Amino acid sequence: MATSPTSPAPSSTQAFADDDPYLIIAADSHAGLPTEQYRQYLESRYHPQFEEFLGEREAQIEASTRLGVRNEQYAKQWFEDHDEELAGGWDAIKRDQALDGDGVAAEVVYPDADAVESRTCVPFGAGLGLSGDLDPELGMAGAKAHNRWLAELCSHSPERRKGVALVPITVETDKVLAEIRWAHEHGLGAVMIPAMWVDQLPYHDRSYDPVWALCEELQMPVVTHSGAAARDEYGDHLGIYVTEVTWWPARPLWFLLWSGVFTRFPGLRFGVTEGGCWWLPQLLWFWDRLAMGQKGSEKLSKDPFKGALGDMLPSEIVDRNCFTGLANVKRRELGQRYEIGIDNMLWGTDFPHPEGTWPNTNEWLKKTFFDIPIDETRRMLGLAAADTFGFDLAALRPVADKVGPTPSELGQLGEGRTAADLEARWAPVKQVGRHWLTGHDFPLISP
Amino acid sequence: MATSPTSPAPSSTQAFADDDPYLIIAADSHAGLPTEQYRQYLESRYHPQFEEFLGEREAQIEASTRLGVRNEQYAKQWFEDHDEELAGGWDAIKRDQALDGDGVAAEVVYPDADAVESRTCVPFGAGLGLSGDLDPELGMAGAKAHNRWLAELCSHSPERRKGVALVPITVETDKVLAEIRWAHEHGLGAVMIPAMWVDQLPYHDRSYDPVWALCEELQMPVVTHSGAAARDEYGDHLGIYVTEVTWWPARPLWFLLWSGVFTRFPGLRFGVTEGGCWWLPQLLWFWDRLAMGQKGSEKLSKDPFKGALGDMLPSEIVDRNCFTGLANVKRRELGQRYEIGIDNMLWGTDFPHPEGTWPNTNEWLKKTFFDIPIDETRRMLGLAAADTFGFDLAALRPVADKVGPTPSELGQLGEGRTAADLEARWAPVKQVGRHWLTGHDFPLISP
Repeated sequence: MATSPTSPAPSSTQAFADDDPYLIIAADSHAGLPTEQYRQYLESRYHPQFEEFLGEREAQIEASTRLGVRNEQYAKQWFEDHDEELAGGWDAIKRDQALDGDGVAAEVVYPDADAVESRTCVPFGAGLGLSGDLDPELGMAGAKAHNRWLAELCSHSPERRKGVALVPITVETDKVLAEIRWAHEHGLGAVMIPAMWVDQLPYHDRSYDPVWALCEELQMPVVTHSGAAARDEYGDHLGIYVTEVTWWPARPLWFLLWSGVFTRFPGLRFGVTEGGCWWLPQLLWFWDRLAMGQKGSEKLSKDPFKGALGDMLPSEIVDRNCFTGLANVKRRELGQRYEIGIDNMLWGTDFPHPEGTWPNTNEWLKKTFFDIPIDETRRMLGLAAADTFGFDLAALRPVADKVGPTPSELGQLGEGRTAADLEARWAPVKQVGRHWLTGHDFPLISP
Repeated sequence: MATSPTSPAPSSTQAFADDDPYLIIAADSHAGLPTEQYRQYLESRYHPQFEEFLGEREAQIEASTRLGVRNEQYAKQWFEDHDEELAGGWDAIKRDQALDGDGVAAEVVYPDADAVESRTCVPFGAGLGLSGDLDPELGMAGAKAHNRWLAELCSHSPERRKGVALVPITVETDKVLAEIRWAHEHGLGAVMIPAMWVDQLPYHDRSYDPVWALCEELQMPVVTHSGAAARDEYGDHLGIYVTEVTWWPARPLWFLLWSGVFTRFPGLRFGVTEGGCWWLPQLLWFWDRLAMGQKGSEKLSKDPFKGALGDMLPSEIVDRNCFTGLANVKRRELGQRYEIGIDNMLWGTDFPHPEGTWPNTNEWLKKTFFDIPIDETRRMLGLAAADTFGFDLAALRPVADKVGPTPSELGQLGEGRTAADLEARWAPVKQVGRHWLTGHDFPLISP
């Protein structure tokens, strides 16, 4: 049962010399049309409702200001400073320029380019706020409009982009499956589902099995992205929202895990994006102990999990089936990478959101990764994402060689430091790894 | 702003020599009458509904078996093995004997003694499952019945017990305040509120301010206890339930924190019991960073938290206002005590629940605390709870001296080890503490 969760998968056929530039794939970036321009991608029978939706947007912006998620002055400055580049939110050529300037070879593209004023929100709110309580018909119509536009965007420099199709899977299954097939046929690379099912069926329900089966078959990872939360309960208290907005998108992970979805569909990949990964180590510890039958579980029935895990530990299933998409990973999270699993941490820039690393990605990489072993950095910055989303590394390599920063530029090499020095420094931490599986009482995080 | 969150509060007037027995207070234990015996404590006008409730209990036990939280064979053996002692769930004399045998001087008493078959559940489910969707009238009636019986129980050896009054605070405020006053006048020591408000007002709402004000005034800590969860969403998947049953009781903590309740009522204490404390370190890190205005928060409004924190950091507020009640603390949690705050970790036995340490508390203490500094152990095993709940240490000391285990018996001293050795071993870990406040990139957990 014991595996080494932290050994990079040997799937990359590209060999890298120590100081070769990094092949960076941003596993979290955003694109979206200025909202009114979605009209031409929206079925015309929904145009009347779309006009209504556009009319209501001002009220929503006011609500954001009230909750405190919008700083008017900051917004004004942001748009002034980045006027030209922000068009990369929807313009493929400007987008490639922005990626190049930021050292990024490729990207996984989520909706909602504008996180400051939501000027590029998907019709009917079917973007990052995708949720089980959207009107089923309008929600699917909005999602389809975005998907159709996104497929166009991703047809430019297709090797550099995997577009994330929006699929409100809580609506009728046949419509869901049809949209996933359409997305796959038109080059989109992943399926974003509502983080919250709200009053629809929870994701352990077997009625979703055809969705998981199809995504497994088409090798399209299923993802959630932070955004939705139980806002109705928060009043105008921003701290509550920020605390919970990482929990709701992660929640489907344990619904799928403990209801056996990953055991029934071992090839399915599920990712939680822009929710950080700081919540994962202790859950893996907690879950593995539960599965191994620690004190407290004797009173439970003999087969309390009803075969949900097969013969695997939760952490092993997470390694096989799950990942996190990260925007601006934190040092504390990096320190816990041997618990989390290096291949489960996919770096992202969050372009063009201001809370991400763009347009200073190299500076952020330097601050965050300066002492991390190079092979591990390669996995987290790009190669793990390539495996997960099926990027063509051979096609990306020339781009990466041109724009990617080198380990020396990130401060990892130089001043007498070698790749081996970095590895030696972290070796004891790596050896402890998931301490509950390696016979250690405590995590070791500090090198 | 910087404080030392880990220095024990100097409130104890009792001095202990190195190898003096521990004064143990179980900050989590349970007591309850066999359900049908609550009849005499229940207002007679609710007797007809009570008969109905008793009739429905068989169906509930079957539902537990289906979810997998009940193992019939284990239950049978448990009751056979502990027939006599389990009467300590409601009999004060037998209870004191069980505490003595387990080395425990005093206890904080929660409802629902029987966690195997719920044979001692509070009328109308107003015990550990206390929840906002209980019928308001019946919920309060059931809670009052338990409180009246509990006050009787705690009148035996009152110095050894702080009873936790059940108060469904989502019902009319005047009834809530009256019940809290009654509980205080009759010697109960804390107020348990529903972990989940469900369809009632969330706890940030100002309509609860009179409740917080009264609990502050009477110095009655407000607590939640694990039990309630969004069960309707889990199907028969036990792993989902176990994952979330620690989240729901913790949730009120950040609702109170970020809505400024602790700033308005700085003397209020709030505790989360039997939900572990493994979820707390990364929340403190996440919250402090948020309050300190890390990257990502610039786009928020200028005063995004609207004064909720006063001039304090979230971790400082947690140190002043919050705590966790722990049943069978884990080594991983102990390793993180300098992040969590030693005085925020109150040991419990969970007596008489099988997932707790009773009747082998000394064995568990030895396994868990053998290398922990003695002064810190004293705080976690009892003195912090004494401060929080207002136990009379002078009255408890003779009991503790008779029944409590010594540091030598826990393996902390002996074989040449001194108290100073234990402290020296953990000094580097203590020095890093909350690494985000002490200038360290990473937590240090392993000694």
